[in-house]
Amino acid sequence: MSDEKQIPYQQSELYKIRHSAAHIMAQAVTELFEPGEAKVAIGPPIAEGFYYDFDLPRNLTNEDLEAIEKRMRQIIAGKHEFRKAVVSAEEAKAQFKDQPYKIELIEGLEQGGFDEYGNPLDEKPEISFYTHDSFTDLCRGPHVENTGQVNPSAFKLMNIAGAYWRGDEHNKQLQRIYGTAWKTKDELKDYLWQLEEAKKRDHRKLGKELDLFTFEEEVGPGLPLWTPRGTVIIEQLEALAHEVERRHRYSPVRTPHVTKEDLFIRSGHLPYYEESMYPPMELEGVRYFVKPMNCPIHHKIFGSQLRSYRDLPIRLSEYGTCYRYEKSGELFGLMRVRSMQMNDAHIYCSEDDFEQEFMDVIAIYQEYFDIFGIDKYVMRLSLHSPAGLGKKYVDNGRLWLKTEDMVRKAMDNGNVPYVEVQDEAAFYGPKIDVQIYSAIGREFTLATNQVDFAVPARFDLKFINDQGEEEIPLCIHRAPLSTHERMVGFLIEHYAGKFPVWLSPEQVRVIPIRVCPKAG
Amino acid sequence: MSDEKQIPYQQSELYKIRHSAAHIMAQAVTELFEPGEAKVAIGPPIAEGFYYDFDLPRNLTNEDLEAIEKRMRQIIAGKHEFRKAVVSAEEAKAQFKDQPYKIELIEGLEQGGFDEYGNPLDEKPEISFYTHDSFTDLCRGPHVENTGQVNPSAFKLMNIAGAYWRGDEHNKQLQRIYGTAWKTKDELKDYLWQLEEAKKRDHRKLGKELDLFTFEEEVGPGLPLWTPRGTVIIEQLEALAHEVERRHRYSPVRTPHVTKEDLFIRSGHLPYYEESMYPPMELEGVRYFVKPMNCPIHHKIFGSQLRSYRDLPIRLSEYGTCYRYEKSGELFGLMRVRSMQMNDAHIYCSEDDFEQEFMDVIAIYQEYFDIFGIDKYVMRLSLHSPAGLGKKYVDNGRLWLKTEDMVRKAMDNGNVPYVEVQDEAAFYGPKIDVQIYSAIGREFTLATNQVDFAVPARFDLKFINDQGEEEIPLCIHRAPLSTHERMVGFLIEHYAGKFPVWLSPEQVRVIPIRVCPKAG
Repeated sequence: MSDEKQIPYQQSELYKIRHSAAHIMAQAVTELFEPGEAKVAIGPPIAEGFYYDFDLPRNLTNEDLEAIEKRMRQIIAGKHEFRKAVVSAEEAKAQFKDQPYKIELIEGLEQGGFDEYGNPLDEKPEISFYTHDSFTDLCRGPHVENTGQVNPSAFKLMNIAGAYWRGDEHNKQLQRIYGTAWKTKDELKDYLWQLEEAKKRDHRKLGKELDLFTFEEEVGPGLPLWTPRGTVIIEQLEALAHEVERRHRYSPVRTPHVTKEDLFIRSGHLPYYEESMYPPMELEGVRYFVKPMNCPIHHKIFGSQLRSYRDLPIRLSEYGTCYRYEKSGELFGLMRVRSMQMNDAHIYCSEDDFEQEFMDVIAIYQEYFDIFGIDKYVMRLSLHSPAGLGKKYVDNGRLWLKTEDMVRKAMDNGNVPYVEVQDEAAFYGPKIDVQIYSAIGREFTLATNQVDFAVPARFDLKFINDQGEEEIPLCIHRAPLSTHERMVGFLIEHYAGKFPVWLSPEQVRVIPIRVCPKAG
Repeated sequence: MSDEKQIPYQQSELYKIRHSAAHIMAQAVTELFEPGEAKVAIGPPIAEGFYYDFDLPRNLTNEDLEAIEKRMRQIIAGKHEFRKAVVSAEEAKAQFKDQPYKIELIEGLEQGGFDEYGNPLDEKPEISFYTHDSFTDLCRGPHVENTGQVNPSAFKLMNIAGAYWRGDEHNKQLQRIYGTAWKTKDELKDYLWQLEEAKKRDHRKLGKELDLFTFEEEVGPGLPLWTPRGTVIIEQLEALAHEVERRHRYSPVRTPHVTKEDLFIRSGHLPYYEESMYPPMELEGVRYFVKPMNCPIHHKIFGSQLRSYRDLPIRLSEYGTCYRYEKSGELFGLMRVRSMQMNDAHIYCSEDDFEQEFMDVIAIYQEYFDIFGIDKYVMRLSLHSPAGLGKKYVDNGRLWLKTEDMVRKAMDNGNVPYVEVQDEAAFYGPKIDVQIYSAIGREFTLATNQVDFAVPARFDLKFINDQGEEEIPLCIHRAPLSTHERMVGFLIEHYAGKFPVWLSPEQVRVIPIRVCPKAG
């Protein structure tokens, strides 16, 4: 694990460098046109670089990109200071009178704002400018101190793409320039190599070449069909999971893919989650759904018998196929799909057993990381936020703090490094998100462990504790091998399609060689 | 295999005995009431006995059944001849003027009739009576020669049930008496023992006691959830299939449970089969269905690559879960369900390879019969009927005859006994239905092998033959281990819940025994 990852990206040096590079690029672009002709929209840092959206009199070309890069290096050489100024809405509007997109943003700020749960903000947000050289932007920062802190040999403009203002296809389409920026020339070189390598290892390209899966128009988008060669891989993953889960004393179960809506009303997924589900099927006056997750059906199996503390922990596992609705435009190979077969399990345990069970799950992750040679990963503990209680989160502040503390303690006692992130928990409890890095260093979201202290009660789950009293179990949701789709997508890139023998669709090929008999 | 089974039931002695017993029972019942008071409906032989429906002034009791049985024995002792008379509709109506149900049946016969494909019959059906002693019934026969040929110690009235006239719940509810009849007293005894034993071995009762599966109200009817103990069994069945199919060179695949309607329109299942499917889900203007069968998606995998004769046969296998709509009232434990995980496979081969491939499937059945100790089974070759061409069957008489002959030849060459049944084929080709008998002699429909000479062309499937030309493959559909649901239902009865060790959910239990130390 890299220590650097422990600092949130938004507070890192790289973030400031990229944000500043975006401003520098915007200055260079506006200078290509007559004053006031180039309209600027927004230009944030992103995961590995930055972009800026422009509304321009003509389409930019790749030659423009070269000229812009050259001008950016001049601005960098000028070591111009980034200066912040807090202004009134009137001052801001006067400054940007020729810039309609900025005016729209300023008006939004003027109306105050709401946080993401719909609570009105106590104070109206501050309006501020950042200025360097001749360029001023509406901006909250942060930035480097001066343009000289952007390394002129560690940035590159990547490409030009179309993007709708505010992401809404009813708005005007703008021109977006993507760039990347790093601290050193070597980092840039590594990144460009990684991109090049990722292109060669693209799971969609290799998946087709290796005949691992196919998408078929008549079956539907986001619904992969695993061919015989791809099925070898997923059956090997299942055999691995079976062996590991058997050793860790899981009990496999098998459940239907279709259930009554009642089940998802009880679980709380309906109506809130309905837009992420396939639409209902109406049968004999009852609405049925294809399941978007396995947990509610596992809860029914737990609840189908009277349970004693002697039976616990009960660990129900199933490589269950779930169906979720993603918009066609958001589907991406195996990484963003509508059907996903998940290495799912639900562990029902008492509070006393929680730490051991939770750490056992973490240990399974680490077993898998060893097997697949994943040596870089990040575990992120996602916590609730008090403001979201009763909206985004189950409304029980005391239990949240208690459960979060249980997880924190378990991770600390187990010496597992992690970072904490506020306000990213699941609806029903804190979770650990696991990010892994492929052999070429690209980040993938693998899976999530969730602690669920709320839903078992909704399902009336209970066990008789050693005092002879009814007690509600905790539930841990886990999927260390992720979904087949995501895992195979990752492994194709990780191994560049050259799978280790145990995973390979073709382990041995006999090639007949004919040795010519000696003449005469 | 029993030779007796080779004669169709409708032509067997037992059928005549049961049919005659139904008439004798009807005479005994009508004699309980004033003349004309008892209205009789219909009384056919059924699988293991017979029934007759009555509209009576009062409800029958179990005491009545004893009295009826006694009177039946007297009628039997009279050795009354069964005499057939062909009559006109007018004569028939005059005879049954007090019998409204018979009048309705006669009027139906008068209007002529249609065969089951909707073709009008060339000739109006003959109207005939059968009379014995004082009782005359509207009847086509066949019957025994006289009542004395019904063995008085080999029949028994079983129970009284409600039944709607013509099975329609809008009609009046009648009283149905079920009876059973056999050739010998021992056969009756065996049958009653079998019934008693089947009750003890009822898969619904044992399934619950052994905690193998559960049905949950909130999940829905006909959708079994396999608990950990039941999952042990189905995973063992899958491991067995995997091992056998690997040896027979099958290629596992994995396909989604949800697909666009387009796929089922192409396969020909829609619109004809829609009422047996779950209703559609409408997404982005497209109708999606949960799959009622796996074949169309396997066809897409075959079609996803260019195939050469060198690649054939291709045998795609999948323990795929299918969803079909059965009315709530028709669901029955694991034997009649809405979700079924099927030991499915589709074999794509040339005509030249057909016989070998088909017999290889039969060999797999026989392997399984050995493993499970199934020593009685029947293979039934279901053929088309020329009248059904273009309606119930693909309209290509020449190909039907050719394919049926291929199957017949394969079975003959392989020395596999079978019976032929007209007009029971699948839509797209002839099939072999396999019936098996449990340890207590009860019959189960296990599975079907179908030859498909029509659908591959609809999917534009082809391979390049050794002449370099495109050729359409034949497809064999097979599922020797049936569905998990049906197979486990059968095995529970077959083994009376005492599974062999390899299948058992609990192979070993350690029981702590404390030996008392010797006193003093």
